[in-house]
Amino acid sequence: MTGAPIDFYFDFSSPYGYVAAHRIEALGAELGREICWRPILLGVVFKTTGQTPLVSQPLRGPYHVNDLQRTARRLGIPFQLPEGFPLATMAAARAFHWLDGKSSAEAKKLALALLNACFADAVNITAAETVAGIGAKIGLDATEILAAIADPANKEKLRQVTDDAIAKGVFGSPYFIVDGEPFWGNDRIPDLRDWIVSGGW
Amino acid sequence: MTGAPIDFYFDFSSPYGYVAAHRIEALGAELGREICWRPILLGVVFKTTGQTPLVSQPLRGPYHVNDLQRTARRLGIPFQLPEGFPLATMAAARAFHWLDGKSSAEAKKLALALLNACFADAVNITAAETVAGIGAKIGLDATEILAAIADPANKEKLRQVTDDAIAKGVFGSPYFIVDGEPFWGNDRIPDLRDWIVSGGW
Repeated sequence: MTGAPIDFYFDFSSPYGYVAAHRIEALGAELGREICWRPILLGVVFKTTGQTPLVSQPLRGPYHVNDLQRTARRLGIPFQLPEGFPLATMAAARAFHWLDGKSSAEAKKLALALLNACFADAVNITAAETVAGIGAKIGLDATEILAAIADPANKEKLRQVTDDAIAKGVFGSPYFIVDGEPFWGNDRIPDLRDWIVSGGW
Repeated sequence: MTGAPIDFYFDFSSPYGYVAAHRIEALGAELGREICWRPILLGVVFKTTGQTPLVSQPLRGPYHVNDLQRTARRLGIPFQLPEGFPLATMAAARAFHWLDGKSSAEAKKLALALLNACFADAVNITAAETVAGIGAKIGLDATEILAAIADPANKEKLRQVTDDAIAKGVFGSPYFIVDGEPFWGNDRIPDLRDWIVSGGW
């Protein structure tokens, strides 16, 4: 790897985060940049920005449901919104940060499994038991995951990552920061690429 | 021209609308699609969506000021925010719709002159006199423009275009509709192009 990592902020309840999660590692591999996955709680961010979940908004909601469907079709990945969307994702994010402390590669595998369950299979991933069950399917220990989700240290870690994101200006998902430059949105991944390749403009 | 027109909704106070106004006619020429410029009042739209002006929002504001600067640099067009931004743009939009009833080519020239005054030269274009003065600089009759801005028929026309936009789902600026498919944002112009070229996906 050459160059600083690309920070990839997302919420497990973010459909554009799901889409980006399927694209960003290929970009990192192409450009020789590590991708640091940083799941956050967008609900906490929204208290700072006064935003509300996109899909619940008049006019903006229906537009984005259509846009997500066509974006997923174009990328060749399945997409549907889960039951009860938007979801509370503390359990998923805590499990991620716990595992990330041991292996970022394993944590990314868990993140993709959770996002795919949510947005390909329309599973509501809010419950700790659901997160543990999805972890078990990829070979993790469900009991360990449940303990990690309940562990105050992982709650605190998630709080810190979210606060740190807000301090860095993160207000949406996905949100990327590379070499100090922020890019918001799945649709800005080509710009992010061009920025790195060209060294900025 | 072949194919249906591309509807181009924007507010004269929208910096991304300004950027898009500098790009969209080239796309129309390339694809053989007429561009129908439809200035609206985004403040009225925001009453429906509950949004607030982007640049005033915590976290989102500073991000977008930076994004606008880098977007303009990349496209090679000047950019600065005018005094008093965001601006009330009834006068500009009424003048446009009045002139559009006589000549869409002339109306587009006026629109570009207004947008350039606002975002290249940082002129606050709210006042009818300012709009008339900018029109005079491109050869229009300032007195006629002032009369048009005060004419209830042009107020009504602007109200209709804005209401029609909301009915079609328009919630931001720039917002494009082609062949029934909506695209929001300057950054989606490449998607809009690909959609037309491919016939959709």
